[in-house]
Amino acid sequence: MIQADRSARFAHKENTADNMLEDYRAIRKDSETLCAPLAVEEYVIQAMPDVSPPKWHLAHTTWFFENFLLVPYLKSYRVFHERCGYLFNSYYETVGTFFPRAQRGLLARPTVEDIYRYRAYVDQAMGELLVDPPASDWDDIALRLVLGLNHEQQHQELLLTDIKYNFAVNPLRLAYRPVENPKAPEAPAPEWLEYAGGLKEIGHTGSGFAYDNETPRHNTYLRDYRLASRLVTNGEYLEFIEAGGYRRPDLWLSDGWAAVKQRGWRAPLYWEVVEGEWWLMTLAGMRRLDRNEPVCHVSFYEADAYARFRGKRLPSEAEWECTASRCAIRGNFRESGRYHPAAVSGMEESGIAQIFGDVWEWTQSTYAPYPGFKPLAGSLGEYNGKFMCNQMTLRGGSCATPQSHIRATYRNFFYPPDRWQFSGIRLAEDAS
Amino acid sequence: MIQADRSARFAHKENTADNMLEDYRAIRKDSETLCAPLAVEEYVIQAMPDVSPPKWHLAHTTWFFENFLLVPYLKSYRVFHERCGYLFNSYYETVGTFFPRAQRGLLARPTVEDIYRYRAYVDQAMGELLVDPPASDWDDIALRLVLGLNHEQQHQELLLTDIKYNFAVNPLRLAYRPVENPKAPEAPAPEWLEYAGGLKEIGHTGSGFAYDNETPRHNTYLRDYRLASRLVTNGEYLEFIEAGGYRRPDLWLSDGWAAVKQRGWRAPLYWEVVEGEWWLMTLAGMRRLDRNEPVCHVSFYEADAYARFRGKRLPSEAEWECTASRCAIRGNFRESGRYHPAAVSGMEESGIAQIFGDVWEWTQSTYAPYPGFKPLAGSLGEYNGKFMCNQMTLRGGSCATPQSHIRATYRNFFYPPDRWQFSGIRLAEDAS
Amino acid sequence: MIQADRSARFAHKENTADNMLEDYRAIRKDSETLCAPLAVEEYVIQAMPDVSPPKWHLAHTTWFFENFLLVPYLKSYRVFHERCGYLFNSYYETVGTFFPRAQRGLLARPTVEDIYRYRAYVDQAMGELLVDPPASDWDDIALRLVLGLNHEQQHQELLLTDIKYNFAVNPLRLAYRPVENPKAPEAPAPEWLEYAGGLKEIGHTGSGFAYDNETPRHNTYLRDYRLASRLVTNGEYLEFIEAGGYRRPDLWLSDGWAAVKQRGWRAPLYWEVVEGEWWLMTLAGMRRLDRNEPVCHVSFYEADAYARFRGKRLPSEAEWECTASRCAIRGNFRESGRYHPAAVSGMEESGIAQIFGDVWEWTQSTYAPYPGFKPLAGSLGEYNGKFMCNQMTLRGGSCATPQSHIRATYRNFFYPPDRWQFSGIRLAEDAS
Amino acid sequence: MIQADRSARFAHKENTADNMLEDYRAIRKDSETLCAPLAVEEYVIQAMPDVSPPKWHLAHTTWFFENFLLVPYLKSYRVFHERCGYLFNSYYETVGTFFPRAQRGLLARPTVEDIYRYRAYVDQAMGELLVDPPASDWDDIALRLVLGLNHEQQHQELLLTDIKYNFAVNPLRLAYRPVENPKAPEAPAPEWLEYAGGLKEIGHTGSGFAYDNETPRHNTYLRDYRLASRLVTNGEYLEFIEAGGYRRPDLWLSDGWAAVKQRGWRAPLYWEVVEGEWWLMTLAGMRRLDRNEPVCHVSFYEADAYARFRGKRLPSEAEWECTASRCAIRGNFRESGRYHPAAVSGMEESGIAQIFGDVWEWTQSTYAPYPGFKPLAGSLGEYNGKFMCNQMTLRGGSCATPQSHIRATYRNFFYPPDRWQFSGIRLAEDAS
Repeated sequence: MIQADRSARFAHKENTADNMLEDYRAIRKDSETLCAPLAVEEYVIQAMPDVSPPKWHLAHTTWFFENFLLVPYLKSYRVFHERCGYLFNSYYETVGTFFPRAQRGLLARPTVEDIYRYRAYVDQAMGELLVDPPASDWDDIALRLVLGLNHEQQHQELLLTDIKYNFAVNPLRLAYRPVENPKAPEAPAPEWLEYAGGLKEIGHTGSGFAYDNETPRHNTYLRDYRLASRLVTNGEYLEFIEAGGYRRPDLWLSDGWAAVKQRGWRAPLYWEVVEGEWWLMTLAGMRRLDRNEPVCHVSFYEADAYARFRGKRLPSEAEWECTASRCAIRGNFRESGRYHPAAVSGMEESGIAQIFGDVWEWTQSTYAPYPGFKPLAGSLGEYNGKFMCNQMTLRGGSCATPQSHIRATYRNFFYPPDRWQFSGIRLAEDAS
Repeated sequence: MIQADRSARFAHKENTADNMLEDYRAIRKDSETLCAPLAVEEYVIQAMPDVSPPKWHLAHTTWFFENFLLVPYLKSYRVFHERCGYLFNSYYETVGTFFPRAQRGLLARPTVEDIYRYRAYVDQAMGELLVDPPASDWDDIALRLVLGLNHEQQHQELLLTDIKYNFAVNPLRLAYRPVENPKAPEAPAPEWLEYAGGLKEIGHTGSGFAYDNETPRHNTYLRDYRLASRLVTNGEYLEFIEAGGYRRPDLWLSDGWAAVKQRGWRAPLYWEVVEGEWWLMTLAGMRRLDRNEPVCHVSFYEADAYARFRGKRLPSEAEWECTASRCAIRGNFRESGRYHPAAVSGMEESGIAQIFGDVWEWTQSTYAPYPGFKPLAGSLGEYNGKFMCNQMTLRGGSCATPQSHIRATYRNFFYPPDRWQFSGIRLAEDAS
Repeated sequence: MIQADRSARFAHKENTADNMLEDYRAIRKDSETLCAPLAVEEYVIQAMPDVSPPKWHLAHTTWFFENFLLVPYLKSYRVFHERCGYLFNSYYETVGTFFPRAQRGLLARPTVEDIYRYRAYVDQAMGELLVDPPASDWDDIALRLVLGLNHEQQHQELLLTDIKYNFAVNPLRLAYRPVENPKAPEAPAPEWLEYAGGLKEIGHTGSGFAYDNETPRHNTYLRDYRLASRLVTNGEYLEFIEAGGYRRPDLWLSDGWAAVKQRGWRAPLYWEVVEGEWWLMTLAGMRRLDRNEPVCHVSFYEADAYARFRGKRLPSEAEWECTASRCAIRGNFRESGRYHPAAVSGMEESGIAQIFGDVWEWTQSTYAPYPGFKPLAGSLGEYNGKFMCNQMTLRGGSCATPQSHIRATYRNFFYPPDRWQFSGIRLAEDAS
Repeated sequence: MIQADRSARFAHKENTADNMLEDYRAIRKDSETLCAPLAVEEYVIQAMPDVSPPKWHLAHTTWFFENFLLVPYLKSYRVFHERCGYLFNSYYETVGTFFPRAQRGLLARPTVEDIYRYRAYVDQAMGELLVDPPASDWDDIALRLVLGLNHEQQHQELLLTDIKYNFAVNPLRLAYRPVENPKAPEAPAPEWLEYAGGLKEIGHTGSGFAYDNETPRHNTYLRDYRLASRLVTNGEYLEFIEAGGYRRPDLWLSDGWAAVKQRGWRAPLYWEVVEGEWWLMTLAGMRRLDRNEPVCHVSFYEADAYARFRGKRLPSEAEWECTASRCAIRGNFRESGRYHPAAVSGMEESGIAQIFGDVWEWTQSTYAPYPGFKPLAGSLGEYNGKFMCNQMTLRGGSCATPQSHIRATYRNFFYPPDRWQFSGIRLAEDAS
């Protein structure tokens, strides 16, 4: 029985080739299911450089398997089309040149149908590879396969965030998928949960899959700290707006204040005044602002300014991880089908709510290599390492994250002004 | 019998409502025929701000009839969708706000299917209007209808130029519609045909349709002049390139030289070196450069620099019109189905070749109001007049122009650096 | 006695070398007199790319004589510094490379003192050249000398407009030179003076100096037209503002409306609301708006929109010239020392006021070559010809123009959005 | 005896008002001495937005004392000019609006002479304040005074870096102050000095002046590490260039590679090829590249890429500080008068060379608040805290830093692409 080292991941199964093929098929199918509500036209567009057309996501994730698994490990494999590498490589400079990111929405062809054929072609070949994988390469194959599946899950989250952005620029304000989001119950006042500091270990422990950026596990020293027992709500954030938060430079980082002025921010992304009232654009269409839901689609700058407005701060990623590592991975994930953060509905045993799911929580930590960090060898070393500059770390997953994808050590990262992800705020403070 | 004043136009027919409905149906069908080769995805994209997505062209021309004919004159008419005005108004500020031009390619919806339904809906209503038009409004209706049909023909040309641009940015370099363009015979040396100057009349005479910008007919004084008997060829233009034309500032207007440096021009648009040889992107895909075909897709700046390189100049629009008004409207138009300029194939009786069709000929004249010019009343006054600044006039139509659309007095206009139209060069010189 | 052909110019003197040296010294001194009020720091700055630092003007005009006269014609001449060509060539591509225009304000050195030494050095050498000019070259020398002196006068006007711009960006709003501008008398209502059209000649006649762009004299056909008997006043323009002129797209050319929105125009340049009242920045410092003075510092777009607001139009340059050629060259020029347009103070015999001086009058004519235009040979051919694209012609000179510099055939030219020149509006209309 | 708490700083003197006035005078004089070689014109210009005109530095530092000391604490004080606050406030949003940073070079006035008068006026008043300071405010006064003096020293370093930049854009490549920099001896091969990790304390201890960003002193956990015994030299960096370092994306952070392409970097700032050889622009003018001198004027991106090229990394700021805190503050500072980094000239007792002076050393640490960081109260809280985003920390001071200004806990910070500071590279690696 062939089994992979350090890659056990999905559904706590053994990493046999059979199990992994099953995972492969399930995850690949998820991507297509997410796209099922789209018209052909909606696969094509790219409403800003940071988002990609849905059909590009479908093709790029396929190219990942083609390029990193089929070409090196399946002898009989012939690439689907010689230009797929150029068109669907995202940013692997060491693999070759690639089409400019900001222009992905200018490509009508390959068509959506072509891309589904590309997927079927690669899936067929992946089946062949996994039916009888070469034993001598199995460790590598299994590692790359699990990476490829996690990669596809990341793009599933991006599919949702990018579709949302694309839909929101359209003045018709249509719904991607209507869903009933019932009015939320009153959010309880946040409590301040205290955690003891000291010398702590954070980072991935070695069992199960993790990205290279979560390693190595290492010591870090924390002071005693407190975390809010739940996320900041729309209602609380509205107080910040109504108190002139977007007009008070003293609340903002210098670069944040420049962003407010240059981009004309007056509220989170997707907030809109309709006949004197706040509404939000959601994946289910326009929805009246619910004060009890977590605030979402804020930038790091807004999260930081909000915290200062409250006399608090954002958690460091080490603080967040030390607390989250004691919590069960439960929450409002993609599987709920809401695709929207939900109001708190009761504390966990751990006393802290919404630590996983709902919204990615901005931390005060920059996305930097852990001490002793070594990227993966070869082109896959470009996966994470080269982005470790100018970005901030976010933790905990969102309502667009598959539950099986998240863990306490997981590090997501975006630039401080980015707002199109499901990103929100949990407050922290020093305990002493 | 109801008949319109000053709008007789197509196929020399009388402007009865019946005849005009027939024209309407034929011209509306042409637009759809032009789009028939497109995949759904190809209707959506906009590869630069100057081009529009094909589906936008289909919808905008439809909105023109809806807004300027159905809404005012068909009592029973209900608009297809309340947002069509916002989405498909191009630039009529006095009609209302409109969606930003540069972002038309960000709109997945309305879908292509929606837009074909929009067309059918409006066509149906136009049929109703024309079956029994209100006699008291017939003059206005007929005038607006002919304008709308000419407008749709203009967008048919844009459909071809925009599709070409969209296809050309795609690294797959696919063909819109394959067509055999046989190798051209050797182009004869150009002759210099001399025309006497003096006090001349130019502008539209009053019979048949013309745009307001062709009026009023007026006196202008010309010196004796000569025109080249044919268009400049690729081979001749290649001599300019090989003589360092794109590296010699003395050949260029100051703004032209700035454009060369800023945009990195080294050859006309769509010229590309493939393995050491020049190829062109065409609507039939990549094609090896043919030295005998007219040079095409040059800007005014390039046309002007080329003329200076030869010690010549471009014709003024008055010179061009005085000569063209004696020529039959024959040539390589859209109807040939080549969608590409053709090498000269014999002189006309008039001794001058290619005066109509093949490529729009840049003149040295800016697009300015004729003496005594009055724009149309109301919103339709925005059709032409407000663009009379910063643009140059082009004359004669191209291989993408319907034959019934062109005439000797027709004034087309683009900005000096524009290159995506089928625009080329005829040389002129003073006779004395 | 050596005498030049076609260059007699200043004060109706013969172009003997002695007379011309006298002119040379007078005009060169004028430039320095204009700069006398400046602090060293004020010679250095460049508040936008279109303006140049005063010290650059002083040096560039000097380089003109060095490069076009001393180097070719004074055998013993040694250039002042090998880098002056690179630093002070403005745009003569055929002479060599030059320092980027937009960065002239980044050069602290050569210092102001260096540049005055450069001027003295060149003036000394020019004296040598003109004491005993080589007879065989005299025609060329005289021609270039007169051109150089007219060139220096052009830069004298630019010195004033650029100094004004530089002073106006400074929040201290200081005066360049205080002057008493008494409150103007009530402006009389404009009359509409009618002029017969027909076949007319415009352009320079051949006696006295003119730029190449004023030649050749040629026929043009005019319809009967009317001109307003005086310039548009601040008070009249204020009515346009108060009627929402800057918010009504129907009044504007398409490119003009884009400029209004992009640049946030709400009034002419240098207009400012101070405690609820309109003030203007002038070369004498801040001054309360006087309703009777001519409106100034408007772009072509504003002039055109204003004319449309009044149901009028701008004159063509041929109309303007035909009328002006019958008028005496009198008016409010630089010599008045006001450096500001003055309210009308009585009609001329010709019945039309302010035709020369006060403000350059925007015409509806683009700056284009006259029929048969030939630029000067060699590098001096770059003086005018290469700018004949994208600009509009202005006529009549301004309060910053030396009286000896202007004439009825004189063509000035700027881009449609330019506002920092003393540019204003005279209305016209068709007579029939 | 009045004495200040936590502000003892210069020359280990007691913070009596007398001593502090002496320091004040000395440091204020230093700024003027640094400007002594400048021509008036050189005080005015701003060759890019990041640099400021020298006269602005002289005025801004003066405004700091006026605004933060004289206005609140010297009753009789009248501000020098009401607009100084607007013109010379740098970025204190809570103090009031300020003139845009990027346009400081557009202000001719106040003149250099005005600004020296401003300095004298404020210095006079500061003398009055310090002769008899109000006892009740002395702690505040002393704190602000020491802050103001350190602030002025920071601007003294900026004076040198900004003057260098301004001089370098001038094609004349003049020297600010000629100085003999003798050819350096051969640099010894770097040794790898090992330091034990563990739980360490970093940050300011509480005696002597420090900026708020150096506090609070706190625990941090380090792994064992090694530092190179000297800085990277020009010769070593040249190997990186010659090995294609600027053409190999695998060596660069993603944002760094984007910067290389967009800015066209091919070598450090101020490197220039002259007739086939590398030269550097220095404050003493052009100088042939010396392979033994430390490389300087590299961005963080270049430092990081160079480290990767060598299989090493940059030190963290905690590693750097733990090592530096054992080293004497000796080195090539501003006082040497060279204003240029010097080749290593012998190890310190500590075994590590060039830890202070020569060049600021880029660390791998982002500029972030220390755990428990509290900014100063009031407007002075804007001094450091609001910049704690998107910047990297640099350590150790440079050849432009006054020796009395630097310490082991000192944190400097610039954006990753910044190159105009004296910034260089020390390599580090993990010990295990």
